[in-house]
Amino acid sequence: MRMVDIIAKKRNGESLDEKEIAFFIENYMAGVIPDYQVSALMMAIYYQGMSQEETAYLTKHMVASGDIIDLSPIKGHKVDKHSTGGVGDKTTFIVGPLVAAAGLPVAKMSGRGLGHTGGTIDKLESIPGFRVELSNQQFIDNVNTYKLAVVGQTGNLAPADKKLYALRDVTATVDSLPLIASSIMSKKIASGADSIILDVKTGSGAFMKTLENSKKLAEEMVTIGKQLNRNTIAVISDMNQPLGFEIGNASEVKEAVEILQGKRIDDLRELAIELAAHMTIVAGVYSDYVEATSSLNELIDNGEALKCFKNFVKAQNGDVSVIEDLTKLPTSQYKIPVKAEQQGYIHEMEADQIGIAAMHLGAGRATKEDKINHGVGITLKKKIGDFVNAGDTIAILNSDQQQVDEIASIVKDAYTIKEEKANKRKMIYEVIK
Amino acid sequence: MRMVDIIAKKRNGESLDEKEIAFFIENYMAGVIPDYQVSALMMAIYYQGMSQEETAYLTKHMVASGDIIDLSPIKGHKVDKHSTGGVGDKTTFIVGPLVAAAGLPVAKMSGRGLGHTGGTIDKLESIPGFRVELSNQQFIDNVNTYKLAVVGQTGNLAPADKKLYALRDVTATVDSLPLIASSIMSKKIASGADSIILDVKTGSGAFMKTLENSKKLAEEMVTIGKQLNRNTIAVISDMNQPLGFEIGNASEVKEAVEILQGKRIDDLRELAIELAAHMTIVAGVYSDYVEATSSLNELIDNGEALKCFKNFVKAQNGDVSVIEDLTKLPTSQYKIPVKAEQQGYIHEMEADQIGIAAMHLGAGRATKEDKINHGVGITLKKKIGDFVNAGDTIAILNSDQQQVDEIASIVKDAYTIKEEKANKRKMIYEVIK
Repeated sequence: MRMVDIIAKKRNGESLDEKEIAFFIENYMAGVIPDYQVSALMMAIYYQGMSQEETAYLTKHMVASGDIIDLSPIKGHKVDKHSTGGVGDKTTFIVGPLVAAAGLPVAKMSGRGLGHTGGTIDKLESIPGFRVELSNQQFIDNVNTYKLAVVGQTGNLAPADKKLYALRDVTATVDSLPLIASSIMSKKIASGADSIILDVKTGSGAFMKTLENSKKLAEEMVTIGKQLNRNTIAVISDMNQPLGFEIGNASEVKEAVEILQGKRIDDLRELAIELAAHMTIVAGVYSDYVEATSSLNELIDNGEALKCFKNFVKAQNGDVSVIEDLTKLPTSQYKIPVKAEQQGYIHEMEADQIGIAAMHLGAGRATKEDKINHGVGITLKKKIGDFVNAGDTIAILNSDQQQVDEIASIVKDAYTIKEEKANKRKMIYEVIK
Repeated sequence: MRMVDIIAKKRNGESLDEKEIAFFIENYMAGVIPDYQVSALMMAIYYQGMSQEETAYLTKHMVASGDIIDLSPIKGHKVDKHSTGGVGDKTTFIVGPLVAAAGLPVAKMSGRGLGHTGGTIDKLESIPGFRVELSNQQFIDNVNTYKLAVVGQTGNLAPADKKLYALRDVTATVDSLPLIASSIMSKKIASGADSIILDVKTGSGAFMKTLENSKKLAEEMVTIGKQLNRNTIAVISDMNQPLGFEIGNASEVKEAVEILQGKRIDDLRELAIELAAHMTIVAGVYSDYVEATSSLNELIDNGEALKCFKNFVKAQNGDVSVIEDLTKLPTSQYKIPVKAEQQGYIHEMEADQIGIAAMHLGAGRATKEDKINHGVGITLKKKIGDFVNAGDTIAILNSDQQQVDEIASIVKDAYTIKEEKANKRKMIYEVIK
């Protein structure tokens, strides 16, 4: 078998078989097949696409290139939730304790943030003392005892995906649906869960800007999951504006806790309930959607979900008193209002620009080496559909610097205000099973 | 400027401008841009093609990557002839002395053979004593004195093309018309001639198997030549069967000399006259096609072209007595007939298979390191359109081994014999200016 023949086959629009895909991945990882042949193959895939079978084989062999987490010491059906990434996404802090309260074990590995999106691990570290590094045994014990543990990514998960992604990034071959889908799914499958609930974001702050492309990505990932024997369900949710009102690290933990306290009843809670419903139904905790949503709402309202969250924080060495008194979370020195220049309704928000503004304030990283400032970020005062008068505060910059005119401009420019009335955005577009 | 943006631009079907193409070639040659980005670009070009301007810029900057031969010390208009490669192609030995006899200086750099096609330089070395390595001064002096000199490729011509071709060869990106055309033209333009006459082969023994693709390649090359201020004309000629009757090194020199002696009047002479006519017309030696062809035929018939050939051989230290007595050229130990198994007309010949058979006999190289045997090869006795009885000799293997059954089978299988009558092939399909 020769790599050049594999490239030519794909170039001509034929499907690769499993042996060819395994040959390419194994020899690429072994350093036998060079980058320059793989980048040519990636570009051929960009144009020719891949069949469902090919995409599943690619995912399977990227998984096989590294460690596969063994979650069998954890009792019960293991369900993972994965978001394709957006701005202000703190659903994990709500969904995790919520399904844990419903009795589902949640063994979650999460990443750090880069660019306009934040990372779960960074946000958790805004709780004083919180440890994201646990031994394998401690991780499993915590899940068995408290039903919920979240750690930084450990082990060598899907290294073929890492190597391929780095190559695609510099060869203009990132934007390929089967390559994106297999990249995400390889890491999820290597993480060892029995079922996977995907939160596929769509809109200005998402990787996929249009509903059509988000649906395609969701369908592709659900198909891969099924072909590799994982129950996989995708919820397509709105990312045309940041999720909730807080963008930052400590402030997102605060907003999530307020949801768990039942203090906020909004679309963030709606999304969390939706995701938790699919997770608990697929695991057999509840028999249908109506039972699931009513039971899950009850678990918020009766404080059980919040209790789970506190136990989880305590178990990972976090200072629980900051959850009981949220004013003890890190905060910023200055609160600088961003004001509307005209009267009207908010029609659009460039969510990724708001994420970038938060990054510039210090809430995120421009490069992997940057340090995070947990206390800074942006609080949204107005969102799509809201009416504003000229001079109204539309957002607040939570900043440790006083001179932030440029960042304020980014936030102001991210809003589109028009005279005519605008509808609020719906949160959930579609569920793909 | 970033290479990844250049790849993305081409990937999206946009045209690259001259600055982008220059950036890519210069930094690739400087080792700054890695192979894996260039192979991705080559694959994007495979799918998206290149505009005439892009292809000309690519050619121009591949030329600029190396030496450009300075032919200005040679008096007169310098015309180069280039064949895209075929089996049994010995036209250079006829066309060279013919246009030299007409007064045109011919300063030719040629290559060695590889695979199923032979090389001009190898063939000349079958003349005892012939030297293909001349100093620059000697080369120029010889052209000025004898109007004709042929040397092996010297200097560092279009090294960017060499580097790109090696990469394309292992990344399934060879079969791209603009890349093929710019590759050929970059070497021709770096060779320094004022005008270029291209002999674009079409058919079973050619790189381009169909007339349609051969025409496209010819048009692409003529356009590049014009954009880079070279008079360029392409003659599309038949390669559905080997050119002439001899395939081998010494035997091809012999066949060419027989044409120069006026002993053979066939389609090989027709092609040589056609190419020589365009060369001499473009150089202003003759005013039109009718004058050119009649004058050139005269230069063969009156022995002037043969005289030029002898002077050229002598000037490069070759033993002229072998030209006067062709039986003194190297020959093979055995003459093994290949016989027809059925009666009928010859409809098709797989010219490349016959080239490969000759290579197996020792007339060519499978790898660059192989040694050539100048005396061996294949003599065709029957060609397309000929009638044969079962048992008739269709070809003779000129071999130094006695056991050549497998090679004989290749040759026999290369012929398609059917009952119905078959037409002879025409030699010249089209001239593209």
